Amino acid sequence: MDADVEIHPTAIIHPGVEIGRGSKVEAFCELGVPTPLADSEKLVIGAGSHIRSHSIFYAGSRFGAGLRTGHRVTVRENTRAGEALQIGTLGDIQGHCAIGDHVRLHSNVHIGQRSMVGDFVFIFPYVVLTNDPTPPSEDLVGVTLEDFSIVATMSVVLPGARVGRGALVGAMSLVKGDVPPESIFVGNPGKVVGSTSKIKLRNGEPAYPWRRHFHRGYPDHVVEAWKTEFAERS
Amino acid sequence: MDADVEIHPTAIIHPGVEIGRGSKVEAFCELGVPTPLADSEKLVIGAGSHIRSHSIFYAGSRFGAGLRTGHRVTVRENTRAGEALQIGTLGDIQGHCAIGDHVRLHSNVHIGQRSMVGDFVFIFPYVVLTNDPTPPSEDLVGVTLEDFSIVATMSVVLPGARVGRGALVGAMSLVKGDVPPESIFVGNPGKVVGSTSKIKLRNGEPAYPWRRHFHRGYPDHVVEAWKTEFAERS
Amino acid sequence: MDADVEIHPTAIIHPGVEIGRGSKVEAFCELGVPTPLADSEKLVIGAGSHIRSHSIFYAGSRFGAGLRTGHRVTVRENTRAGEALQIGTLGDIQGHCAIGDHVRLHSNVHIGQRSMVGDFVFIFPYVVLTNDPTPPSEDLVGVTLEDFSIVATMSVVLPGARVGRGALVGAMSLVKGDVPPESIFVGNPGKVVGSTSKIKLRNGEPAYPWRRHFHRGYPDHVVEAWKTEFAERS
Repeated sequence: MDADVEIHPTAIIHPGVEIGRGSKVEAFCELGVPTPLADSEKLVIGAGSHIRSHSIFYAGSRFGAGLRTGHRVTVRENTRAGEALQIGTLGDIQGHCAIGDHVRLHSNVHIGQRSMVGDFVFIFPYVVLTNDPTPPSEDLVGVTLEDFSIVATMSVVLPGARVGRGALVGAMSLVKGDVPPESIFVGNPGKVVGSTSKIKLRNGEPAYPWRRHFHRGYPDHVVEAWKTEFAERS
Repeated sequence: MDADVEIHPTAIIHPGVEIGRGSKVEAFCELGVPTPLADSEKLVIGAGSHIRSHSIFYAGSRFGAGLRTGHRVTVRENTRAGEALQIGTLGDIQGHCAIGDHVRLHSNVHIGQRSMVGDFVFIFPYVVLTNDPTPPSEDLVGVTLEDFSIVATMSVVLPGARVGRGALVGAMSLVKGDVPPESIFVGNPGKVVGSTSKIKLRNGEPAYPWRRHFHRGYPDHVVEAWKTEFAERS
Repeated sequence: MDADVEIHPTAIIHPGVEIGRGSKVEAFCELGVPTPLADSEKLVIGAGSHIRSHSIFYAGSRFGAGLRTGHRVTVRENTRAGEALQIGTLGDIQGHCAIGDHVRLHSNVHIGQRSMVGDFVFIFPYVVLTNDPTPPSEDLVGVTLEDFSIVATMSVVLPGARVGRGALVGAMSLVKGDVPPESIFVGNPGKVVGSTSKIKLRNGEPAYPWRRHFHRGYPDHVVEAWKTEFAERS
């Protein structure tokens, strides 16, 4: 492990854990928990990561640089995630899943096995991504959240559902089937109710695509590319 | 305590805890937390149990052999559970409840006081079993989940509701009243929409009763009995 | 810190934490976590408080006397709470919010930033108070729960919503807009369906206002005032 990684003395680090330089692991964490279900003994965490207290990561997962977690996060084996993933407090990632770059999971999000989460996806508190259409069974089908999509608080995404690029799932919605790109999906049972282009911020500007106005915490080159994209459109 | 019980040095074990042989208690657990609400000082955990890290059990509860928990489970006093209970990560069992044999709770399930859970019941993530029809009050009424019933993700079972033997509650449903055996109940407000016999696996075989095809982790004698049951029916 | 505060040897107490006399902090807690977002370095916890194991409090928050938490509570900076707050196990208070006196949060409640919670409010398990009408954005609007209001299990309160004094939000409801005082609001999408005055306990007495009959754990002078209030009305 890199010499400049800061690990709290109460944290438990099992063999086979690689943590990139400049990272920090807080108190009462447990990293690299062994399991026969892991494809490898390794847990790889990219440089500049920050794992907050009471978090648990199993062996066999791999994270790009700049991972940031809240407290009490649990991540099982065979999770593959890109750069700058944020996992909120109480997040529960069941493993055997793929997550893109710059994804942000708010508190208490549950990612079921076989989920495919694209780049720049936002998932809000108490959302569950499921995988079993006939519970209990071995007949699992994951969900897909495409790039820039947003799933709001307390929604459930049913097995095999796909949320299109830049689509918005409203709070407490039950998502089944395909949600078209840039559309708004709400309700239980849920349905498409319009286009995200109709939604305004309180200042009257368009709220979507959100990368027009929401830039907090993204790297400069990403924000510059977004600004150029929208300058050209207008 | 049995000599072959493995307890992590960071775990806190209060007086009055009995843990059966061959069991394992992981890091940062706290077992036998005293409370004046417990019927006895004892916490009894059967042989061959595995309690994962950061879990908390109060005094006054009793579990059969083969208990297996995820991480950060909380179990209050006066819980009575049978054999081979599985409690997923973040499970919150409020105590003063009864749970049968071979019950499986997925992550983040909340079992309210006075709940009665039968044998071989499945409860999926973020399900809450409630107990107060007029909150807040002292007028509590528990729920009943009969043998082999299934409650899918993010459903709420209202006080006094009963889910019949082998019935299936769909995701994000609000359960009120009686759900007949082998029926499907969905929605908010929810209703019975058919019989589980209509649901197929992707290979065309019947999905229910699930014990026809789902056998992972059950003891051989149980699986053999199920195979015989369905061989005789066909 | 007061000499008669009991702190478990495994708890981590950062500089700047003030805990009132007669308080208790259990195992694996972390108090006063520093953050640049805190208005001050101080975390102030009133006398006679009890913080159960695995809980985390950031710097910059302030609690009146008699705070009681369950396990694994997380409280971020700039939370201002009155006396006798109860936070159930797994509670997640995001900070930058105001909470009145004698508020009771059951397990796994999520309080978003900018929430305003009055006195004697009850919030039941898995309720989320949100704040972003156009997620993700910087355009946050908090919710308001007025005195004596009740939000039942698994409900979501949308940004800017206001639940009136003594109103009852039923389980699994999606709250938008204003809920009038003493009214019942249920459903997804939700609506007002009547007055709390229609709801009876099983003994036939009125269930609301709940302070007529529910007195457990409140100080004598509060209960006496409520008794006088209803004696005068009848």
